[in-house]
Amino acid sequence: MIDGRLTALRREMKKRKIAVYVVPSSDFHNSEYVGDYFKAREYITGFTGSAGTAVITMTDAGLWTDARYFIQAARQLRNTGIKLYRMGEERVPEVNDYIERNLKEEENIGFDGRLVSAVKGEELAEIARKKHGAVRMEDDLIGRIWKERPPLSANNTWILDTKYTGMGAWQKIDQVRRRMTEEGANVHLISSLTDIAWLLNLRGNDIAYVPVTLSYFSVSRENCIWFAQEQAIPQTVLAYLHMNDIEIRPYDSFRDYVKTLKGKRILLNKKVVSYRIFKSIPDSAEIIDRPDPTEILKAVKNPVEVNNSKIAHRKDGVAMCRLMYWLKTNVGKTPMTELSVSNYLSELREEQDGFLEQSFETICAYADHGAIVHYSATPETDAEIEPEGLLLIDSGAHYREGTTDVTRTFVLGPITEEMRANFTRVCRANINLANASFLKGVTTGTLDMIAREPMWEAKLDYKHSTGHGVGHLLSVHEGPNRFHWKTADCELKVGMITTDEPGLYFEKKYGIRLENELVCCADQANEYGQFLRFENITYVPIDLDGIDPEQMSAVERRRLNDYHKMVYQEISPYLEEEEQEWLAKATREI
Amino acid sequence: MIDGRLTALRREMKKRKIAVYVVPSSDFHNSEYVGDYFKAREYITGFTGSAGTAVITMTDAGLWTDARYFIQAARQLRNTGIKLYRMGEERVPEVNDYIERNLKEEENIGFDGRLVSAVKGEELAEIARKKHGAVRMEDDLIGRIWKERPPLSANNTWILDTKYTGMGAWQKIDQVRRRMTEEGANVHLISSLTDIAWLLNLRGNDIAYVPVTLSYFSVSRENCIWFAQEQAIPQTVLAYLHMNDIEIRPYDSFRDYVKTLKGKRILLNKKVVSYRIFKSIPDSAEIIDRPDPTEILKAVKNPVEVNNSKIAHRKDGVAMCRLMYWLKTNVGKTPMTELSVSNYLSELREEQDGFLEQSFETICAYADHGAIVHYSATPETDAEIEPEGLLLIDSGAHYREGTTDVTRTFVLGPITEEMRANFTRVCRANINLANASFLKGVTTGTLDMIAREPMWEAKLDYKHSTGHGVGHLLSVHEGPNRFHWKTADCELKVGMITTDEPGLYFEKKYGIRLENELVCCADQANEYGQFLRFENITYVPIDLDGIDPEQMSAVERRRLNDYHKMVYQEISPYLEEEEQEWLAKATREI
Repeated sequence: MIDGRLTALRREMKKRKIAVYVVPSSDFHNSEYVGDYFKAREYITGFTGSAGTAVITMTDAGLWTDARYFIQAARQLRNTGIKLYRMGEERVPEVNDYIERNLKEEENIGFDGRLVSAVKGEELAEIARKKHGAVRMEDDLIGRIWKERPPLSANNTWILDTKYTGMGAWQKIDQVRRRMTEEGANVHLISSLTDIAWLLNLRGNDIAYVPVTLSYFSVSRENCIWFAQEQAIPQTVLAYLHMNDIEIRPYDSFRDYVKTLKGKRILLNKKVVSYRIFKSIPDSAEIIDRPDPTEILKAVKNPVEVNNSKIAHRKDGVAMCRLMYWLKTNVGKTPMTELSVSNYLSELREEQDGFLEQSFETICAYADHGAIVHYSATPETDAEIEPEGLLLIDSGAHYREGTTDVTRTFVLGPITEEMRANFTRVCRANINLANASFLKGVTTGTLDMIAREPMWEAKLDYKHSTGHGVGHLLSVHEGPNRFHWKTADCELKVGMITTDEPGLYFEKKYGIRLENELVCCADQANEYGQFLRFENITYVPIDLDGIDPEQMSAVERRRLNDYHKMVYQEISPYLEEEEQEWLAKATREI
Repeated sequence: MIDGRLTALRREMKKRKIAVYVVPSSDFHNSEYVGDYFKAREYITGFTGSAGTAVITMTDAGLWTDARYFIQAARQLRNTGIKLYRMGEERVPEVNDYIERNLKEEENIGFDGRLVSAVKGEELAEIARKKHGAVRMEDDLIGRIWKERPPLSANNTWILDTKYTGMGAWQKIDQVRRRMTEEGANVHLISSLTDIAWLLNLRGNDIAYVPVTLSYFSVSRENCIWFAQEQAIPQTVLAYLHMNDIEIRPYDSFRDYVKTLKGKRILLNKKVVSYRIFKSIPDSAEIIDRPDPTEILKAVKNPVEVNNSKIAHRKDGVAMCRLMYWLKTNVGKTPMTELSVSNYLSELREEQDGFLEQSFETICAYADHGAIVHYSATPETDAEIEPEGLLLIDSGAHYREGTTDVTRTFVLGPITEEMRANFTRVCRANINLANASFLKGVTTGTLDMIAREPMWEAKLDYKHSTGHGVGHLLSVHEGPNRFHWKTADCELKVGMITTDEPGLYFEKKYGIRLENELVCCADQANEYGQFLRFENITYVPIDLDGIDPEQMSAVERRRLNDYHKMVYQEISPYLEEEEQEWLAKATREI
C-alpha cells in the first residue's frame, strides 16, 4: 500500500522536476495535533505518531521522529521501504543535513508551503539556493494522489463564557494591542489556532483533542479580522463577533489579505506562520519576528481559570480514583486489556458533569509497553492485563471548566525490588519538584534539576521534559513553560500551570511515570525577594504499593503524606462508601 | 582629608571642562585586585573595598558598590560628603543612569581611559554623545593631585615549572593559535594579567594576592610579543622567553604597537581591553570581540594541575586543622582577637613547605562581623573572641603547587537553636552540591539550584554566588565557571575547579559560610549520556558542634560522614598525636 503511494508521489515529483519532497506532520497553523485532512505524513508513511517528517527522493524515503516514537515507528515502517531516522541519536543526520547531502546540483526541493513554518521554509530555500536549485512550494502533491482524503473540517464554533475564561475578548485584544505598541507594530498576524481561540474566547471542533476552529486572525489599531470557514460559525457566534467589533472574512481569503499589507510593520512569529503566507507579505512591509504576545498571556492563567481548573481536576480525580479502585480490586478476577481499561476510564470521565472530550489519546501501557513513551494500544497490540507488574496510564480530558493531564503507574501484583526502587525514585522526583520553594526569576530549566536529582544520583535519566504548560480548554501541551534542564529557560510566573511528570523507562521491560499538574503561586516576600511555590491540582493517589519508604527521606515521606491527605479531602466527598474506605487506605500515612 | 582631595580634583576637572569624573577600581588590565599604584578610587573616597566606582561632579560625589561592601562602605564614607549608592537595591540608580541624569547639555565626561574597559568606555561615550558633549579620557586627574602616589610595581617575574603547570608555554600558545584560526583572527591581544601569566607559565609579584606581572601580550601566526617592564625580568626569564621564541618589548610601548595593526583581524575581549587601547586600534582593523581563548583553557585544569592542587589543599588542610584544634581548645583560656587569630593562621600556613603568600585578605569575622560578607578586621574593629557564638574564617593561600580558598565557621561555645538550624542548612547546601551527580551539558546555573534548595525551603537566601573558579597560582577568583542560578550559564567541564560556598547572614547578629573546592570529574557513561561528579579537594572538618543531625536526611548524614572520613585519612598523617586524636573526634560519624 505504502509502496504504491510512494510510486504515485514520485510520478508527481518527476512531472514537476522535484528531486526531494518533504512531508511534515503539520497543518496550516503549525498545530501539534492536526485534523484528519492534514494527516499527509501518515498517509505517505503509515506512521501514525503525532510528530515526524517524511523525506522522499526518487530512490529513497525516510522518516525522522523523536525518542518518544522510536519503537512505534520501527514497527509501523516495517516492510514499507521507508527508513527510520532516530532523531537525537548519534550519527543520525538531521533532516536538513540529509536533504543537503542528497540534493544534487540544480535539483529542486518540493513541499506544501502551507505546512511548513517560515523559519523552516527559509532553511529549505537556503539549501536549494546553495545547490543552484529552487523550492517548489505551491503544490500539495500528497493532495493530488490521496483519493479518499477526508474533507477539511468545519465544525461548530462556540463561545466560552467569561465565567470560565475570567476575561473578555476585548480585554485580551487590548492587552495584545499594548504589546504591539511596545514592539512598534501596527499589524499582528496570528496563525496559531490555540492563540486565536484563547484571544476570542471561542472554541471549536476542528481538531481531535484540541477544541479549536481552523482560522487566522489579524489585529491592528483600527480593526480585528477573523478569517474562518463560514459554515463553522453559528448565528450566536456571528452576533458575538459583531458585538466585539470583530470583522469576519473567509478562511481562504487570508493570503490575499496578507498581500495588501504594504508598508506595514507586521508582528508575527516566523516559527508558526507558514512559509507560503510569509512569502505573500509585500516586500515593503517590515517584519517584527517575535513570539505571539498571546503565548505568554495565555500561559499565565488568571484566578478564574485557576479555580476552574481545580474544579476540572476534582472531577477528573473522581474518575481516576474510581478507576484505580476498580483496577486494584478487579485485576486477576475480571478480564481486562489495555483497550478495555482505556474505555472504562473514558466512561468514568464521561459520567462527570461538563465532560467534553479527552484531551489526548490515552496511553494505557501494560508491562513492557510502558517503556514506549507514547504508546497507544491498538487491537493488534492490546495486551491482557495480569495481576502482576506495572500498568502506566497517561490520560486527560477537557471539561467545561478546564483541561487535565495526569499519569499514574499502578502496581497490579508482585513487582521486583528494582521496580520498587525505580518507582520510589520517580515518586521522589515528582513530589520534590512539586514542593520546591524558589525565588521569583528562577527558570523552568533550573527547577528541572530538582526532578532530575534522584535519577542522576542513580545514573538514570528520562529522555523527555519533566513537564509542559497545559492549555485552558486548549491544547494539553502549551508553551512557553516547560521543565527541561537543557533547553528550557522560561521564567516561572504566578498563574502558570505546568505538568510535573518524571519517569523511568526500561525497554522491553517496564515504564514508570507519575504526572501531576502544578500551579505557580506567590509565597511570602521578604528581604531576599518574592518567593514562589507550586500548588498541586491533581488529586489521585500515588500507588503506595510501588513505594519503598526506606528510600525516602523523612521530608519526602511528609511531602507524600501531605499530598495524600489533600487527595483524600478533595475526592472522598464524591465517592461511594466502599470507595471512600479504599481511598483512605490508598492515601494512608507512610 | 577626603574633602581636600575632592576640592583638588574639581579644580583639575574645571580646567579641562569636565563636568563628571569617573574613578573605577581597576588597573590597566581590568584586574580584580590591583597594585597600590592603582588605588585611585580608594584615594579619592577613603573606601578600601576591592569593588566600587566613584563618580564626582562639581557639586556631588557618589560611590557605587555591591552588597558585599554595604556595611564597610557606609562606615568608611561617613563624614566624607560622598554618598553611598547600594547597587542592586531598589530605587538605586545604576552608575550610567546617574551620569546620564546629571550630565547637562554639551558637558563632558572625564575618566582615565586606561582604567575603563572598551565596553564601559563606549557606554560613557554614548551618554556624552546624547548630550552633545564628549569624553575626555587622556588625563589621569587623580595622578595629578595624588602627591605620595606609590610607584608602579615592577617586581621579579619567575618561571613556574611544567611539573606544576602540566603544559609548556609553547603548547598553550599553540592551543590559542588554533582558536584564533577558528575565529578567523590573525592577531590576538591579551590584556588580562592572569591570562598572560597562565599562557607563559610566568608568575610575578606586582599585585598583592595575585602572583602576576604587569604586562600585555600579542600573539599572531608569525610572532609572540610580551610587553613588560624591563626591570621586572631577570636573566633567567629573558633566556626562557628567547627559548620560547617570545619577543620582549617595553610595557609602555604597547599602545604604539597597537597603532600599527592596520588591516588586521584582531581577536580581543572588549570587556577586558582598556578603552584607550581599543581606541588606538586603526580603523582599518577588524575587531573580533570574544572572550580570550585562554579564559576557558585556564579554567579547565589538566591532571597535573589537579594533582598539584590536591597537594596544596593537603598542606592548607593541615594548617586549617591545626587552627581549628587550637581555637576549640584555647578559646576562653587564651586571649584572642580576630587579628590575632588571622595572624596565627598565617603562621600555620607559612610553616607549610612551598607556601608563597595568602591568596586574599583573610576574613576573620566574629559574631555580628560574620554578617559582613567581605569583612576584614582592622585594629579599630578587631573583636575579642569569646567562648560563645560563631567565628567565620574565609582564607586561602598560594603554595608552589596551587591555590586554596576555604571557609569554615567555628562554634566557640553555646549557640542558639536558630544558629544551629542555619548552620545545618548551610552544611546541607554545601554537601549536597558537592555530591551532585549530573549529565554532561549541565550548567553552573542549573546546579546552583541544589545549594539553594535548603535555603529557599526556609525562605532564606544568600546574596552571592555559590561558588567561583579558582586560578592555579593565579587569581583566587576566576571565570567562567561560577555557581549562580540567575546569572551563570557555564557548562561544567571535567577539570574545572569551583568553590562551593553557600552561606547565611543575619545583619548585626552572625554569619555562617562553609566553603570547599570541587574538581569536576568524569563519572560513568551509559545510554543516558556522560555523567559527571565532583571531587572534594578541601580537607577541613565541618564543625559538628554546629550541626543538628535531626535536620539532615540519612543520605545527607552519610555524605557528611564520608567527607569527614576522607578529611581524617588525608590530614591525620601530618598531625601530632594529640591533634590526631582531636581530629578523629572532629570527624566522627553522626
